[in-house]
Amino acid sequence: MGTSLPSAATASDITIGPIRGSHKAWVTATTVRGEDLQVPVRRIDLTNGHHLDVYDTSGPYTAYGSAAQVHDLTTGLPGLRGDWAHNEAVPADPAVPGSPLVRTQLAWARNGVITPEMSYIAARECLPVDLVRDEVARGRAVIPANHRHPEAEPMVIGKRFAVKINANIGNSAVRSSIADEVEKMVWATRWGADTIMDLSTGRDIHETREWILRNSPVPVGTVPIYQALEKVDGDPTALTWEAYRDTVIEQAEQGVDYMTVHAGVLLRYVPLAAKRVTGIVSRGGSIMAAWCLAHHTESFLYTHFEELCDILAAYDITFSLGDGLRPGSIADANDAAQLAELRTLGELTGIAKARGVQVMIEGPGHVPMHKIVENVRLEEEWCDEAPFYTLGPLATDIAPGYDHITSAIGAAMIAQAGTAMLCYVTPKEHLGLPDRDDVKVGVITYKIAAHSADLAKGHPGAQQRDDELSKARFEFRWQDQFNLGLDPDTAVEFHDETLPAEPAKNAHFCSMCGPKFCSMRISQDVRDYAEAHGLTSVEAIEAGMAEKSAEFAERGSRVYLPVVG
Amino acid sequence: MGTSLPSAATASDITIGPIRGSHKAWVTATTVRGEDLQVPVRRIDLTNGHHLDVYDTSGPYTAYGSAAQVHDLTTGLPGLRGDWAHNEAVPADPAVPGSPLVRTQLAWARNGVITPEMSYIAARECLPVDLVRDEVARGRAVIPANHRHPEAEPMVIGKRFAVKINANIGNSAVRSSIADEVEKMVWATRWGADTIMDLSTGRDIHETREWILRNSPVPVGTVPIYQALEKVDGDPTALTWEAYRDTVIEQAEQGVDYMTVHAGVLLRYVPLAAKRVTGIVSRGGSIMAAWCLAHHTESFLYTHFEELCDILAAYDITFSLGDGLRPGSIADANDAAQLAELRTLGELTGIAKARGVQVMIEGPGHVPMHKIVENVRLEEEWCDEAPFYTLGPLATDIAPGYDHITSAIGAAMIAQAGTAMLCYVTPKEHLGLPDRDDVKVGVITYKIAAHSADLAKGHPGAQQRDDELSKARFEFRWQDQFNLGLDPDTAVEFHDETLPAEPAKNAHFCSMCGPKFCSMRISQDVRDYAEAHGLTSVEAIEAGMAEKSAEFAERGSRVYLPVVG
Repeated sequence: MGTSLPSAATASDITIGPIRGSHKAWVTATTVRGEDLQVPVRRIDLTNGHHLDVYDTSGPYTAYGSAAQVHDLTTGLPGLRGDWAHNEAVPADPAVPGSPLVRTQLAWARNGVITPEMSYIAARECLPVDLVRDEVARGRAVIPANHRHPEAEPMVIGKRFAVKINANIGNSAVRSSIADEVEKMVWATRWGADTIMDLSTGRDIHETREWILRNSPVPVGTVPIYQALEKVDGDPTALTWEAYRDTVIEQAEQGVDYMTVHAGVLLRYVPLAAKRVTGIVSRGGSIMAAWCLAHHTESFLYTHFEELCDILAAYDITFSLGDGLRPGSIADANDAAQLAELRTLGELTGIAKARGVQVMIEGPGHVPMHKIVENVRLEEEWCDEAPFYTLGPLATDIAPGYDHITSAIGAAMIAQAGTAMLCYVTPKEHLGLPDRDDVKVGVITYKIAAHSADLAKGHPGAQQRDDELSKARFEFRWQDQFNLGLDPDTAVEFHDETLPAEPAKNAHFCSMCGPKFCSMRISQDVRDYAEAHGLTSVEAIEAGMAEKSAEFAERGSRVYLPVVG
Repeated sequence: MGTSLPSAATASDITIGPIRGSHKAWVTATTVRGEDLQVPVRRIDLTNGHHLDVYDTSGPYTAYGSAAQVHDLTTGLPGLRGDWAHNEAVPADPAVPGSPLVRTQLAWARNGVITPEMSYIAARECLPVDLVRDEVARGRAVIPANHRHPEAEPMVIGKRFAVKINANIGNSAVRSSIADEVEKMVWATRWGADTIMDLSTGRDIHETREWILRNSPVPVGTVPIYQALEKVDGDPTALTWEAYRDTVIEQAEQGVDYMTVHAGVLLRYVPLAAKRVTGIVSRGGSIMAAWCLAHHTESFLYTHFEELCDILAAYDITFSLGDGLRPGSIADANDAAQLAELRTLGELTGIAKARGVQVMIEGPGHVPMHKIVENVRLEEEWCDEAPFYTLGPLATDIAPGYDHITSAIGAAMIAQAGTAMLCYVTPKEHLGLPDRDDVKVGVITYKIAAHSADLAKGHPGAQQRDDELSKARFEFRWQDQFNLGLDPDTAVEFHDETLPAEPAKNAHFCSMCGPKFCSMRISQDVRDYAEAHGLTSVEAIEAGMAEKSAEFAERGSRVYLPVVG
């Protein structure tokens, strides 16, 4: 995309090269029109000659061998989707007469069209392409893919697919630079961020976003009200629909793939937040609340919602309907303000989808474990099963500095219950801005939550990585154990702190028990024994041991006293 | 206890002084005989003049102001319980004629006796002492308190009480020293470890344990088979009942409060582990499996279980019936080997309790989220609701280096379901030995899991800390926010990385949004507005807003299109 960019980031600022023990590879997917698509995977090479392909979000950065190979950051990544066959405009909802003609994944899916994006996604998820189309048509999944962001590799967000994670980046008024933010995007996607949200609130918002978009291999989300607020010098009461609309169009033209819109913060809900322990903690929510109160008028996001839908439909931007009244503390979870807004988001979902716009719904925040499932149940009931996209939630408020962990507990549980995407939380949440290490820890922590949920939901293929890693662990293939993990570098570093010598990585023991005794080795003896005695199935074992059981019955009966108390 | 100790740790090795923003205090509890007991709390002093008392496991170390005040480590802490009135021996189970006479908390509770330990615990937990006695009598809670460990401050482990956490320490053959281990104990209890397990496997096992016991304010657990194995030069097949028994007595005399005994690993279960992905991963389990296979004889722990009960009863040592066949990977969770052993642990529970011995049951390990609740259900059904004590479990295998997090997810969920104590996992799990930082991160992470479960279970008073912290956050009382957290030092450090200046800690904004815009400040405006308009209850709000609603109905109806798709 031809926009000229200030020279604020160079190839040397960017992390490149493969993740330890793996290399980037591509598998071929074929579109319904017979075109071949190259779908990226990260191929983990094992020492036993096998390999495991895992989902890859890192774009070409992990394929570059040197800074010289890096594409020109000022012009950005090649437009992957630029060459793909364009589909025609179709009725937003073919079941409704007079439905507007649009060009969105939702409309195509409803009209039975399988787009190249869907074929690409099916290959990435190792699932049938019909499932992708059906879930998108049903509104239970979204493909955030602005026509003007061809650099992004298509991905899907929906409960039938692998749980996704988002990483927030973005400078604030206090610190950070454009180069920092581009590298944060590369760094976050390296470790597995499926989407990026640029939440910049300070200077250079437009330029920072342009750099990120042109170089991002993943969909990019924004909260347009932040930039609109900058345009009116930070005074929420000075906001207007026109200023907001123009900001949305500006960002749409740049290629933003999904936008958080806090259109459910209605004037009459605002006082519901007054008695809360922590009031309104969403920035967008509080901006709109301030505007509504100051003007004593219903939110312009709500009254102009249809116009907004038509703008988003023109680019196929996905709504992320924001929960401006989400709870900011355990005390406020699932309260009247939160649930009132959720009902309104459900109404808005219907409006957007009737106009062909894809929708997901944002969720909390801070929720104790016993109130988590209810959030998903109500969201699905009221919002027609639109994909749920939650921030954590934190399962307790009492650990500032560890909120990646307090929230990973809630995130894993809410994803198990059906949430489709999790917005990460870093260790700096509530305290400061995340640096490079915080971003990585946040992403890895959320990959853990997402993968745990994939396992619990029985997502096809999810357990294979666990099994491969556990086999490697059992067989003392240390390098494979490290490399199959989410963060091989840290695994190696931790191992080497105790046993740094290279031979230790081939040793059939580890630092936990030392060389003299090892449970894994004894397990191997057990296995050898079982094989030698033909005890290789539960049936054989039970048959084989029946004799032994009889032998022990006498001795055994001595200790089988009646159970008392 | 007069044992002479080698000079291996000095006061200067030990971390002392209060945790930031708090000081140690004592509240008075009165025994049924009218004696006053001083029960420790950590008093967090707030800048608004209030304070919050929280459960304190740190012993006198946080009360010392300088190294000169530290007690003589070679003789150890004063014997807190040494002065307490001794109770008489009573029938282990008064409902069973001929029941042996013992002196255990279980027997006393069954006989209606409220011990000083129970009074102390009731004050610590802020719960009625009758509940403590009833739960102990029912076998649904245990008080691990060896008569020969008077230094320990009484505590309870049971599902009706605050969820507890254990920290494993202990040297291995590869590295670590006695001074390291004593300091690890002090360090772990400083941050909230409710019990300590000394899992030493190398040299100086006896001496290390003596140092730890004499200086530990919390109950200490061990796995006696580890030391027994050392005595036979690391050869499991050379173990005998007599060598094991003598080791148990040696440790009992020293004051160990609870012992892990893998008496459920029966000969006929061993082959069930042969087809597993990760075989037998419990050290104790694999030792006993190796012994059973080598001798083709039933486990001596099982055949001598009653004798073992009588030894433990004499000291009031609590059984922690070990899960030697716990799964070591997601693939092996809830399998035949694990569940066969659990049934046997249930049988042994009955035997132990009939002889007046307190019992808890150890649990996994590695379990995907959807299989976690079943573990608690079966344990409660088969083991007569004996307190469950689990190691995590890890909800996925794919994140070596982050297993404190993979397991905190499982730990929080299994505690919500009724697990009474959680054994921590550090970031070094599977990779190396935890250092000082790892121990702290492990403890804090498990405090998060335990507290999240307390909240979800509605434990009385648990939410007060969340509410106080959230109020402090909302009111920009930064120091209070830091100090009410589980780790004030880290919270301050993270805050100062972005905004180091002292005035920022009083600022009514933070680095996330910067000074120009702040949602918390807008929330305050909302609150002021609501108060000014008398909108201070949901009823008033609804009444007050009715007029406005009517005004917006026309405009509103424009956007309330029928929900389609």
